[in-house]
Amino acid sequence: MKKKVLSMLTASFFLSSVAFAETPSAESVQNSIDITWVMIAALLVFFMHAGFAMVESGFTRSKNALNILMKNFLTISLGSILYFIVGYALMFGSSGGGFIGTDGFMLSGQSDNIWFYVFQAVFAATCATIISGAVAERMKLGSYMLLTIVMTGFIYPVVGHWIWTEDGWLSQLGFSDFAGSTVVHLTGALGAVAAVSFLGARIGKYSGDKVNVIPGHNIPLGALGVLILWFGWFGFNGGSSLAADPESVPHIIATTLLAGSAGVVSTALYTQFRYKRIDASLTLNGALGGLVGITAGCAEVSLAGAIIIGLIAGVILTEAVQFIDRTIKLDDPVGAIAVHGVCGIWGTLAVGLFSTSSGLFYGNGFEQLGIQLIGILAVIAWTLGTTSIFLLILTRFSSIRVSREEEIQGLDFAEHGSSAYELRDTFLSDNAQTSVGIGNGLVERLNNLNHSSPKAKES
Amino acid sequence: MKKKVLSMLTASFFLSSVAFAETPSAESVQNSIDITWVMIAALLVFFMHAGFAMVESGFTRSKNALNILMKNFLTISLGSILYFIVGYALMFGSSGGGFIGTDGFMLSGQSDNIWFYVFQAVFAATCATIISGAVAERMKLGSYMLLTIVMTGFIYPVVGHWIWTEDGWLSQLGFSDFAGSTVVHLTGALGAVAAVSFLGARIGKYSGDKVNVIPGHNIPLGALGVLILWFGWFGFNGGSSLAADPESVPHIIATTLLAGSAGVVSTALYTQFRYKRIDASLTLNGALGGLVGITAGCAEVSLAGAIIIGLIAGVILTEAVQFIDRTIKLDDPVGAIAVHGVCGIWGTLAVGLFSTSSGLFYGNGFEQLGIQLIGILAVIAWTLGTTSIFLLILTRFSSIRVSREEEIQGLDFAEHGSSAYELRDTFLSDNAQTSVGIGNGLVERLNNLNHSSPKAKES
Amino acid sequence: MKKKVLSMLTASFFLSSVAFAETPSAESVQNSIDITWVMIAALLVFFMHAGFAMVESGFTRSKNALNILMKNFLTISLGSILYFIVGYALMFGSSGGGFIGTDGFMLSGQSDNIWFYVFQAVFAATCATIISGAVAERMKLGSYMLLTIVMTGFIYPVVGHWIWTEDGWLSQLGFSDFAGSTVVHLTGALGAVAAVSFLGARIGKYSGDKVNVIPGHNIPLGALGVLILWFGWFGFNGGSSLAADPESVPHIIATTLLAGSAGVVSTALYTQFRYKRIDASLTLNGALGGLVGITAGCAEVSLAGAIIIGLIAGVILTEAVQFIDRTIKLDDPVGAIAVHGVCGIWGTLAVGLFSTSSGLFYGNGFEQLGIQLIGILAVIAWTLGTTSIFLLILTRFSSIRVSREEEIQGLDFAEHGSSAYELRDTFLSDNAQTSVGIGNGLVERLNNLNHSSPKAKES
Repeated sequence: MKKKVLSMLTASFFLSSVAFAETPSAESVQNSIDITWVMIAALLVFFMHAGFAMVESGFTRSKNALNILMKNFLTISLGSILYFIVGYALMFGSSGGGFIGTDGFMLSGQSDNIWFYVFQAVFAATCATIISGAVAERMKLGSYMLLTIVMTGFIYPVVGHWIWTEDGWLSQLGFSDFAGSTVVHLTGALGAVAAVSFLGARIGKYSGDKVNVIPGHNIPLGALGVLILWFGWFGFNGGSSLAADPESVPHIIATTLLAGSAGVVSTALYTQFRYKRIDASLTLNGALGGLVGITAGCAEVSLAGAIIIGLIAGVILTEAVQFIDRTIKLDDPVGAIAVHGVCGIWGTLAVGLFSTSSGLFYGNGFEQLGIQLIGILAVIAWTLGTTSIFLLILTRFSSIRVSREEEIQGLDFAEHGSSAYELRDTFLSDNAQTSVGIGNGLVERLNNLNHSSPKAKES
Repeated sequence: MKKKVLSMLTASFFLSSVAFAETPSAESVQNSIDITWVMIAALLVFFMHAGFAMVESGFTRSKNALNILMKNFLTISLGSILYFIVGYALMFGSSGGGFIGTDGFMLSGQSDNIWFYVFQAVFAATCATIISGAVAERMKLGSYMLLTIVMTGFIYPVVGHWIWTEDGWLSQLGFSDFAGSTVVHLTGALGAVAAVSFLGARIGKYSGDKVNVIPGHNIPLGALGVLILWFGWFGFNGGSSLAADPESVPHIIATTLLAGSAGVVSTALYTQFRYKRIDASLTLNGALGGLVGITAGCAEVSLAGAIIIGLIAGVILTEAVQFIDRTIKLDDPVGAIAVHGVCGIWGTLAVGLFSTSSGLFYGNGFEQLGIQLIGILAVIAWTLGTTSIFLLILTRFSSIRVSREEEIQGLDFAEHGSSAYELRDTFLSDNAQTSVGIGNGLVERLNNLNHSSPKAKES
Repeated sequence: MKKKVLSMLTASFFLSSVAFAETPSAESVQNSIDITWVMIAALLVFFMHAGFAMVESGFTRSKNALNILMKNFLTISLGSILYFIVGYALMFGSSGGGFIGTDGFMLSGQSDNIWFYVFQAVFAATCATIISGAVAERMKLGSYMLLTIVMTGFIYPVVGHWIWTEDGWLSQLGFSDFAGSTVVHLTGALGAVAAVSFLGARIGKYSGDKVNVIPGHNIPLGALGVLILWFGWFGFNGGSSLAADPESVPHIIATTLLAGSAGVVSTALYTQFRYKRIDASLTLNGALGGLVGITAGCAEVSLAGAIIIGLIAGVILTEAVQFIDRTIKLDDPVGAIAVHGVCGIWGTLAVGLFSTSSGLFYGNGFEQLGIQLIGILAVIAWTLGTTSIFLLILTRFSSIRVSREEEIQGLDFAEHGSSAYELRDTFLSDNAQTSVGIGNGLVERLNNLNHSSPKAKES
């Protein structure tokens, strides 16, 4: 066994030796730990997709839960593949005038940067999945898949090229967005704004002036999702240093912990003040608001600054949800536009205020703040524009929304001929019953359905 | 792109260069890996709060699920902020006579130790959140928040100063608690004992001599929580070495794996023997009992010793739950006092028995065992005393318990005007219904409530 | 505090100094990072057990959820202990003619390899837990525990010795299975085939020629489980390099991400083509099929090769579920045999096709493919043979299946006198009711049951 382990380690060191000298140098070992940390961070960001899936299914109705889960699974899957084929190249390829990358398709010539592709691929999918919550309960799965392809394959990479590459025009301008309040969160939220505008509200959401409640079906699942997202966010922000830096990584993790915490506390207290009770759903979203708010500045604001940014994010979030839902009447079932869009803007501007190196509050004047504002406006114009054009074209060919009948019936049955829950056993004693009716099992059910639900087949 | 990554790495190495020489030395790289490991361990401990949230909501009634989730979210959030402002200083500041720390408030002068703050902050929150399960289903959220502030800001840091700082009086005495069977788990459980004593049992729990069952509503969610806790526990124990030590870290992870496993096996077999069936809830708690039991000795007991400690913990847990629930009649909905308190004492004493360096069973006599006992008694006196005094004062000003009506109605409606589940879609075909009634959606619902439930508003 | 942290770090460095020179060398630091990475990977594999638990309980009926959870908890627990006592020695001990290990029981003489034991122990438990899903809803817990002991203590270690030790006869032959498509997944699935054959189908599954649907009760929980499994799989594959290799680890993580993604996409599209709708349950299993498919070749196929392997795995999975369920009529509630068995065979053969160093498609002829086939056949013969002999003996002494009455009633009540859910609060206003009836709380319930359900006691 000893011999075996030795031989294994020898084997692995031999592999390593491809990367660095036979006997490792301090530099080569630092490279190992840097890349290992970024890989671990990438896994945490991957796990955020479990968080999004739980938040989005928990905060919506049980009749649409399978459909939302499918949207989340297909987002990370299509996103990873599309970003490998084209997205990575358009984002980090040699710059075409600071606007778009032009080489590295299918990672050609990038064999040393696979670690970097992995980290960036899970980011790209995160941007796209933000949309799935906002369009929940009425967008056709097929149309959503096409939108995901365009987001991860084109729209997001262009924004990333502007901001996260040396030659990018916003990067050249001095725009600062360390981990993506704008690049990832605002971009995803803007895609959501466009999609929701094209889709319209869910049936029963707005009746005349009345704004109806469409409650989520499983808040504990949603709460778990929020904690998974927070857990993953440490990798999202901490991995963006692209090195296992013993100074910046702990600082980033501390600001991420404190800003998320401040978002929870301020939303809880503010909803108590505003509505006379601590609202659970808003407080859960308050954690996310604080996290989106610190994403841009996590590496360059102080710990106290992080707390203030989070406290403000919680208040902004509460008012933004109110404003979007009641005033401009955009029906966003999970509050994604307020969390990722409005708090994304706040986080980007907060760099111009709280950055210890360039922020207004540290005596550096308005320059950084102005640059941040320019970047936000540019990304709004680009993302709303391109997404709208794509959706305009798409809607020319087919409806992107399920039929009224399918929406009332629920997308789980309409699009998957199935249901997310089968809880009769929990209440009925005669469990033999559960072997009849609409199931959600494996293949036999499908065949049953092919014969039993002609209507559903048309869809 | 290549150029970009290089520039990125250069940038990050430049940051690193603040921490160590331009060209990394083996020492500086070891420092990177040590701190990176402790940060990863801290993230795992953070994730334990998702475990606590799922265990506590799963093992209690659905009408109180949101309230328990809010308690968990506010614990980690208030805890992180309070520990930053005051807790860390009182725990690790320059010692005031071995009793309490006296400097480092808001981490002043601690910029090199932010990594250590992060790791310790998530520990502090863990201690506080143990209470939330025991007081579930009847304690006012506001009162709980005040208790959390006192625990993370004062009571816990003092215990930590005694045991985990060189100058601490118990540390000086030779008290050994590697990862916190006493510091974290027993301290939290003692806070729970005091709080439950002040609160009293839930309505319907004890009718005369009869002990009624108040079943949890979602055990699969609770089981997931236990596995998340176990996953996080590897960071809780493994990170406490404060270094990526290639000898001690694997040893600690192995003892943690084996003791938790032994706790599951012994509880399963013991409940089969004791009650003629393997009890699911107790077996889930058995994993936690084994983990609490190994926490103090994880670095200094053998692998076989870890298995024995876990096997005994499972039996102790089963009897402790019985004793606390039926004999002394403390109503602890999730068994937190038995798991964290009784097994915490067992784990602390087990060091005196099984430590290969100081344990009785390794020919070192009773000295260590005696010191462990002194430490346990000191922590019991301090925590029960301070928590009781705080609660005595608090109850002078207002009740810490919701009204009978609110308790029967459920804290989710009483304190949040909402509900955790909306499963009608799962059973009814007419889903339009879900847009009426008490929702748990976002802000509109709250406004509805402000008009529709005057009574709830008074609370 | 500073002093304290310093002293702590000193202490830990002192511990480290046992492992390497006082002042760390680049080699010793590389050793720290290698072992730290493998430990982190082991924790991710441990967490896969939460994934299995959620998938298996979510895809089956609520009346059996507790029982399945107990099976999962006991698998990781018994597995870790058994593998410590005997499994590790039989797998990695000095070879007895390339067939079985012969020393290292209870890790004697293995103190430097505890890190390796931990990583291998969670693998062994993974192999065993694959069975729990296939035998769900009818196998006695006690019989399952005995099967787990034999799998982790004997059957699996022998397969591992053949393939993962230098002297193993299949290893000598050149059989290639980097992370265990055959060693872990196929072996577990073959145990499932044998167990299901002995058990027979669930009541109501097959009525004459008709194949009935027995839907799972909580697909969102199952979907979370799949994402947890995927998250853990990065450690399963990435840790198998046994070193923090900056080249191979990112490559492995990329192939694992892309193959799982391709499995999702191809299953979604293929079920749309085959059944006119995207099937949710199959698409969730499609992710697992892609992951099992890449496990053997993750380190030696290209990124494009990984995508192709995953795309094919999704189609194979869909047809395999159909074939196993409808043609050969093996009742596998969660599709474990198709996912781990059929896709495990595919992944093992795929090495012979797509390996850039030995694969047919890279001009290396049929040799590797032939060797892979020999290995698959050998493992099928060994595992089916030994498992069948064990079950043949076991069934001589007692039935391994619960009674018809217990199966209809549900194993949660029959074997645990309890239920997984108590959702009446969610629907009824009078919550006082929940303190009566069958509970799933702690110990008092058990006593109640001992008096109230004589029938259940007989079991």
